[in-house]
This record gives sequence, structure tokens and C-alpha cells, in this order.
Amino acid sequence: MKTYDRILAASLQLFNEQGERQVSTNHIAAHLGISPGNLYYHFRHKEAIVHQIFLQYQDFIRARLTLPSERSLQVADMLGYLDSAFDGMWQYRFLFYDLPGLLARNPPLQQAYQQFLQEELNHTLHTLCQRAVDAGLLTLDASDINPLVVNIWLVVKFWFAFEQVAQPSQAVSEASGRRGVSQVLALLKPYVADALRPGFALAQARYGGAD
Amino acid sequence: MKTYDRILAASLQLFNEQGERQVSTNHIAAHLGISPGNLYYHFRHKEAIVHQIFLQYQDFIRARLTLPSERSLQVADMLGYLDSAFDGMWQYRFLFYDLPGLLARNPPLQQAYQQFLQEELNHTLHTLCQRAVDAGLLTLDASDINPLVVNIWLVVKFWFAFEQVAQPSQAVSEASGRRGVSQVLALLKPYVADALRPGFALAQARYGGAD
Repeated sequence: MKTYDRILAASLQLFNEQGERQVSTNHIAAHLGISPGNLYYHFRHKEAIVHQIFLQYQDFIRARLTLPSERSLQVADMLGYLDSAFDGMWQYRFLFYDLPGLLARNPPLQQAYQQFLQEELNHTLHTLCQRAVDAGLLTLDASDINPLVVNIWLVVKFWFAFEQVAQPSQAVSEASGRRGVSQVLALLKPYVADALRPGFALAQARYGGAD
Repeated sequence: MKTYDRILAASLQLFNEQGERQVSTNHIAAHLGISPGNLYYHFRHKEAIVHQIFLQYQDFIRARLTLPSERSLQVADMLGYLDSAFDGMWQYRFLFYDLPGLLARNPPLQQAYQQFLQEELNHTLHTLCQRAVDAGLLTLDASDINPLVVNIWLVVKFWFAFEQVAQPSQAVSEASGRRGVSQVLALLKPYVADALRPGFALAQARYGGAD
């Protein structure tokens, strides 16, 4: 692996384990057994590393949130998107420990994040809900789509922070992600089309939610 | 006002305006025109001030979340609880800018918060939902109550952080709280009893939600 990529991989690991604020560039260089000068050759400061890791996260979400173009949306697609959302949050979890604080300390990242959120992800989530309605998976009035998208977004985005506050003695784990999926399914449940209810109940059970 | 209370009031104001991490005890003393020694006489460190302000918040929530004991729950009660939840968050908003971080830096507060959350508030919210079902306001299976309570809790608790991330250029305002109420109403909407739907739609409109 090239030094550039090794720096990114080590930083992600250390940030996830210890929190981004607790890890300095010297810390990262020492962990890799390279000189601080070598690290600075690739990244001028820690914020540039965080920014680059965010772009990896963005690519991950983009690749996984591709909507099928030649057929209707299916329940399996929706479960796949949810899994991906929490997978991504788990792999890049340091980003979500204190997202407002992280963004406030890193203006270029703030801007990149806003752009991804407003111009891309918000649109994708609305399209996804609309496609689920069109495919007869969800029964939703047009005016209910936006509040639902906001609530899904909120539950996904703050799920790890919520679990951290509710159970501070336990580290956030992959099982947290599964509980998060089950909470999003609870948001969708009232809108699930009658014909899909048995399959939906099975999916809920699979994620440890109530039946 | 006694110095003790003046310190609490000034701290709350400065924490809300500038964020708790940006405000030192020296800063608070200077703001009040008292000596640091005088402040330390009342509070040994900033964490003790934060803890005491949290207890004020707890009293506020306790007083406002009292369930009627001699009659059924009404829609107006539920709207009142929601208003109170966001009122409290607005008045004590610095607590919620980065709650996980704040608690991690203040172990005694962490413990007090957990106790309030697990032993009191969680129980109150479940009772509240059950009373709403008993009074015929909500139509909910018993197994749906817990996921709904968790989602309400999450939307309330992280609403200000969500708005901060979504619109970083705008400071969190009282209008944010109204949008938060409208998001919680969207969570409840699918469960509202048929007879109450017209009144519920009016309430949603009042909070700026979709009709």
C-alpha cells in the first residue's frame, strides 16, 4: 500500500478507536513508523486527512445508494440501502460521534458535507421514497414524504450518538447498527402496503425489532 | 439575586450563546464582575456549574411532564408536553449541542443524566403513550410502543444538532423548536385515532408541518 493510503487507513482506525480529537498527526506518524515530515508531505494538517476520509465515505454511500434503473424498487433493495447506511456509519463512525463539532472545526469539510447533503443525498432519499410509493411498497401521501425523510435521516445520523448517551458503558458496536435499522423499520411500518406486511414483519424480526 | 444564582444564570446565558467548551470560569467571573475566588467559593469547577444547571433542567421537565391523575389524557396535554420538551431544550440548549461529549467530560453528570433517563423519563414516556392508547387518542399495538418512544426521544434530543448540521449558517432558534414539534407530530400521525384526525391536522398546520 502507498504511504498516502496507509496514512488514511491508519488515521481511520485511530480516529474510530480513540475519537478524532484525541489523535494528532504525530500520533498517526508514530503509529505508522514514519516521520512527521513524511506525513506532512502528503497531508498539510489533520483536517485534510479527515476531509479525504469523508470523501471515501461519500464514495461508499454513492456506490451503495444506486437506484435500479430498469425495474421497480423491491423490499430487498430498501433493506439493502438501510444496511449500507449503517455499514457506512460503522466503518466511518468517528465522523458521527460529534458531527456538528467536527464540521465546525473544519470549514472546507463543512462545505463539502453540505453539498453532499443538500444537492445529492436529500434528493436521493426523496426519490427513493417516491419510487417505493410508485412500486406499491409504501402507502404515503405526497405531503408525508418530506417529514418521513427528515425523520429517517435523523434516526440514521444520530443513532450512534443516541446509543452512546443511552449506554455510555458500552462501546458502539455493529449490533448498534442493527438496532438502528430496526428503528428505521419502525418509522416505515405504518406506511407498509398490506400485501407486504408479513415479509416486513420477518425483516423486523431479523433486525431484532418487535414483531 | 444571590451570587450563587447569579453565577448559574450568567453561566447558562454564556454557555447557550458561546457553547460550554468556549466559556471558562474566569470568563464567567469577569462577566459578573466578581473575583474568580468568589466564584470558586460557590462552585469548585465548571463541571459543578453545568451539573447544577442540568438539575434545573430536570426540575423543569419534571414539573411540565406531570400526567393528569383524575381524568383521561387529551390531545391538548400531548401538545403541551411536546411544547415543553422543546421549550426546555431551547432554554437549556447548550446541554444538547454535543450531549455525548458533554457527558463524557463530566462523570457525575453522566450518572445523574442516566438515572433521570432510565429510571424516570423512559418510564414517563412509556406511561404517556399507554395513557394515550387507553384514552383512544392513539391506535398502537403494545409492541409498537417501545420503538415509537425511542424514535420520539431521538428526534427530540437530537433535533437541534440536526438543524445545526443541516443549516450551519443559521443559529438554532425558537423556530427550530417548532419544526421539531412538527417532526414529532409526523411520527405520531400514522397512529392518530380516526376521530381525532381533523384536530390533529390543525395542530400540524399550527407548527408549520404538512397538512
